[in-house]
Amino acid sequence: MLSHSQIKYIQSLQQKKFRRQYGVFVAEGEKIVSELWASNFGVEGIYALSGWLEAHRHEIRPGVDIYELSEKDLGRISGLKTPNKVMAVVKTPEPGNEPEHMAGSLSLVLDKVQDPGNLGTIIRTADWFGIRQIICSPDTAEVFSPKVVQATMGSFLRVKVSYTELEPFFEKTKAGTPVYGAFLEGENLFEVNPSGQGLMVIGNESKGISYKVATFVGKKLRIPGGRQSNSLNSAESLNASVAAGILMAWMTKK
Amino acid sequence: MLSHSQIKYIQSLQQKKFRRQYGVFVAEGEKIVSELWASNFGVEGIYALSGWLEAHRHEIRPGVDIYELSEKDLGRISGLKTPNKVMAVVKTPEPGNEPEHMAGSLSLVLDKVQDPGNLGTIIRTADWFGIRQIICSPDTAEVFSPKVVQATMGSFLRVKVSYTELEPFFEKTKAGTPVYGAFLEGENLFEVNPSGQGLMVIGNESKGISYKVATFVGKKLRIPGGRQSNSLNSAESLNASVAAGILMAWMTKK
Repeated sequence: MLSHSQIKYIQSLQQKKFRRQYGVFVAEGEKIVSELWASNFGVEGIYALSGWLEAHRHEIRPGVDIYELSEKDLGRISGLKTPNKVMAVVKTPEPGNEPEHMAGSLSLVLDKVQDPGNLGTIIRTADWFGIRQIICSPDTAEVFSPKVVQATMGSFLRVKVSYTELEPFFEKTKAGTPVYGAFLEGENLFEVNPSGQGLMVIGNESKGISYKVATFVGKKLRIPGGRQSNSLNSAESLNASVAAGILMAWMTKK
Repeated sequence: MLSHSQIKYIQSLQQKKFRRQYGVFVAEGEKIVSELWASNFGVEGIYALSGWLEAHRHEIRPGVDIYELSEKDLGRISGLKTPNKVMAVVKTPEPGNEPEHMAGSLSLVLDKVQDPGNLGTIIRTADWFGIRQIICSPDTAEVFSPKVVQATMGSFLRVKVSYTELEPFFEKTKAGTPVYGAFLEGENLFEVNPSGQGLMVIGNESKGISYKVATFVGKKLRIPGGRQSNSLNSAESLNASVAAGILMAWMTKK
């Protein structure tokens, strides 16, 4: 049984303001929680049904608060339409130093990706393709919002997501680092030799890559297809996470 | 000003039962409505703010009912969190004959894709890559549900989406038609020569391609990346619409 103030506490974590204030966020579901223990993330509390606890209590690290809940109480604190069996309150990692591109690897740069579902899906896709670092503009969606966390399907545990002003980031990036981005007038993606390293910029859902960031993109790519001139014979654009997925698939191909 | 019964009518179209009963569905937003007139879809009514009507009244075909609304009334009938300026009630097309694969082209086959956002995004991506036909199992999400229509960004107007039992569909498909599908043990996608024709099967979000449908897949493909054996070093799966996008991008490449 949870107290009224405990319920209020967990519910408040749906809002950014309180996630900041308490330094924690929520992650729901058996899959994500089972992958938490293999990560560097600290866990403050586990809120679970008795059935889940019976099977998994031995996996929970010492020092983690454990709450056994009824389905009704879990429904109260869950942000999901269909609550799962378990929910974790996870400690937000310290932001650490300013992000730097790791030479020899491919990293993503997100320029105002605003939809939480898109950000979560991009993190999940990056994880699939072995991309370990994502650098986000400050106006990109927040990685620890519940919708993003859930859409990553646990991949937020393995991909480092940092927020920084993009212009200074590009300015201090080592000369010669290839910077890729999708533009309608770019070169056909499948005719570009995938280097597997550098920076790949993903733009905003409706506006694409901003003018200022575009000046740093040395290699403009185009995903084949799309609308020819002004005719209405095709889609005008791709969904941001689908476009990012196609770019990542090709650029990480050995 | 809308009457109470008109408001109830539009609101009821958020539900499948009433969309079926009245033979119509809703489409919202300037972009989708502007593309409606270039399509074969019949429009029953347009519900718009006065500003939109002033600029667009001349585009509306004869016989379409026009309602000028206040922002408050539009907010009442809209299914969106942030209502746009215009909403259309569109006539559901007749289902027509049983779908048949058109030889020489690439079509998609959706095997229980359940998430409306995924279905909408897959239709939009198909439209981008020039795929004109999608055949869905009866338990795939409904194309004219509001979430699907909005996620297509207007592409439902250009891609024919049919529902049928998949086993009889495959059985009557011409021998020699290549049938593709993604499997963990398949051939590396980027090592397969894209034929640009045949059937590409997309499976369910959590279960993938069903056992029965898998027996019809002659060409198993694998998107490189992903988790190696049982280690937790990578995402376990890709989002269904991202995977579909990567498959379509490669298979329609000239």
